[in-house]
Amino acid sequence: MRHPRFHKAVLFGTGLIGASLGRDLLRLGIARSVVGIDPSRRNLAAAKKIKAITAAGTSVSGDLRDADLVVLAAPVSAIGKLIGRIAPFVLDEALVIDVGSTKAGVADLARTSFPHGNFVGCHPMAGTEHSGAMASLKGLFAGKTCFIVAGEAKIRFVKSATALWRAVGAMPVSITALEHDRFAAHVSHIPHLAAFALMNAVAATGIGRVQKFSGGGLRDTTRIAASSPAMWRDIFLANARAVSEALAGFKNEVSLFENALTNRDGAALTRLMTKASKARRSL
Amino acid sequence: MRHPRFHKAVLFGTGLIGASLGRDLLRLGIARSVVGIDPSRRNLAAAKKIKAITAAGTSVSGDLRDADLVVLAAPVSAIGKLIGRIAPFVLDEALVIDVGSTKAGVADLARTSFPHGNFVGCHPMAGTEHSGAMASLKGLFAGKTCFIVAGEAKIRFVKSATALWRAVGAMPVSITALEHDRFAAHVSHIPHLAAFALMNAVAATGIGRVQKFSGGGLRDTTRIAASSPAMWRDIFLANARAVSEALAGFKNEVSLFENALTNRDGAALTRLMTKASKARRSL
Repeated sequence: MRHPRFHKAVLFGTGLIGASLGRDLLRLGIARSVVGIDPSRRNLAAAKKIKAITAAGTSVSGDLRDADLVVLAAPVSAIGKLIGRIAPFVLDEALVIDVGSTKAGVADLARTSFPHGNFVGCHPMAGTEHSGAMASLKGLFAGKTCFIVAGEAKIRFVKSATALWRAVGAMPVSITALEHDRFAAHVSHIPHLAAFALMNAVAATGIGRVQKFSGGGLRDTTRIAASSPAMWRDIFLANARAVSEALAGFKNEVSLFENALTNRDGAALTRLMTKASKARRSL
Repeated sequence: MRHPRFHKAVLFGTGLIGASLGRDLLRLGIARSVVGIDPSRRNLAAAKKIKAITAAGTSVSGDLRDADLVVLAAPVSAIGKLIGRIAPFVLDEALVIDVGSTKAGVADLARTSFPHGNFVGCHPMAGTEHSGAMASLKGLFAGKTCFIVAGEAKIRFVKSATALWRAVGAMPVSITALEHDRFAAHVSHIPHLAAFALMNAVAATGIGRVQKFSGGGLRDTTRIAASSPAMWRDIFLANARAVSEALAGFKNEVSLFENALTNRDGAALTRLMTKASKARRSL
């Protein structure tokens, strides 16, 4: 067997990630059929057209009756309800994976909703700044890291999920849900929060005028502040605990700089930056 | 006159910016000769070799006796002392410019040290991540913004400085010293401070391990944390007041996010990010 072979996948959510995965499942022969379910008719129609799904779903209970792969690719804010709605109909032998960008919350839900150990949390690091089925790409996951959170899943389901991601070209990395969420908070969520906050601080000063004459500086620095507020609200809420912890650590470090600045203490500034510079180099 | 013509320039500091300017002054015929002064013999030798200067200086008083252009391209931390040392020897009719990345401090010094209105503060936005004369480039300033701080300078000196920067291809933008420093604090200094602080927060958590398996995320986010601690100490100290002010505004905005997170208040998060997103788009 070159890669896992599924009889029928049910894909909840046919946006950028869901539709990209559907396309790869079908074109690589990883799944014989992919049934798509999405509240957006536009996404569904697009997904059908670009061969990300073989058919649109009709009823959750009917669609899941013979599915051996279930992919939860809905927004992180919708996954809780979705799990509650589908869990009673999912076969004990079906592999269930999600693709959400935070993991601890979903892992907690999955533990009680899928007591047969068939849920494996996944996070392919493959977002783009676009969204929707029409923005999906063949081979989107090739060469990208995919975090795998085994949690309480049985070994064979973990192996099956790992093989699936490998088959679409991703590089699976095993991690705990808490470790993942702390990592994501530091790598992605705090930098975004800082960019939003900096943009608001700038707006309060009226220095935007200068920007008009001065090229890219501020525009580069605050590029990510143009990201979707709705999407980031959901991410921040889904990862609120890890983000709050990371934010406390970040604020603490900022305060050390602030004190050094207030005291015009060059030695302290050098010490703080040398520490950061060393840590950076050790990556 | 196609562009300003100087008889003799004295260039204090033959690092990346100084040597790049020297090369353009000579090759474009903006100055007939450029005398270089630098504590680093290596920089001086390199500057001579690549034709950034026509000769190394011999004595400050002698070199300045017939100079009609004086360029202060020393590190921001050295400019104060430098001004004190040279001011008595600079001709009242010589144009004096600096190229430092903060402006208010130098402007204050220059007001008393050059009472004849011949000092014009300048900040060409043309740094690279390299340093030293050997890293200098012909045409470095072409297409780049150059901030011009007139301060108390006489109009004809401001015009002369503006023409000089235009002659090397830069785009002069008039600004006050305070406005410049607030802008630089928000565009550059706070983002650097935040990157250093984030790196230190990460180092405290031990999540560096994850990074090794996960590609670029953290490495991208904290790239600037690898910048030179000594250079940034000087910049932070030189712009301490504006950075402290900007930092207070930034921390205030971060706290609004923190409160919204603590209260799991999605509406407040959306409001904060929509504000940032709108401000970003208006740039």
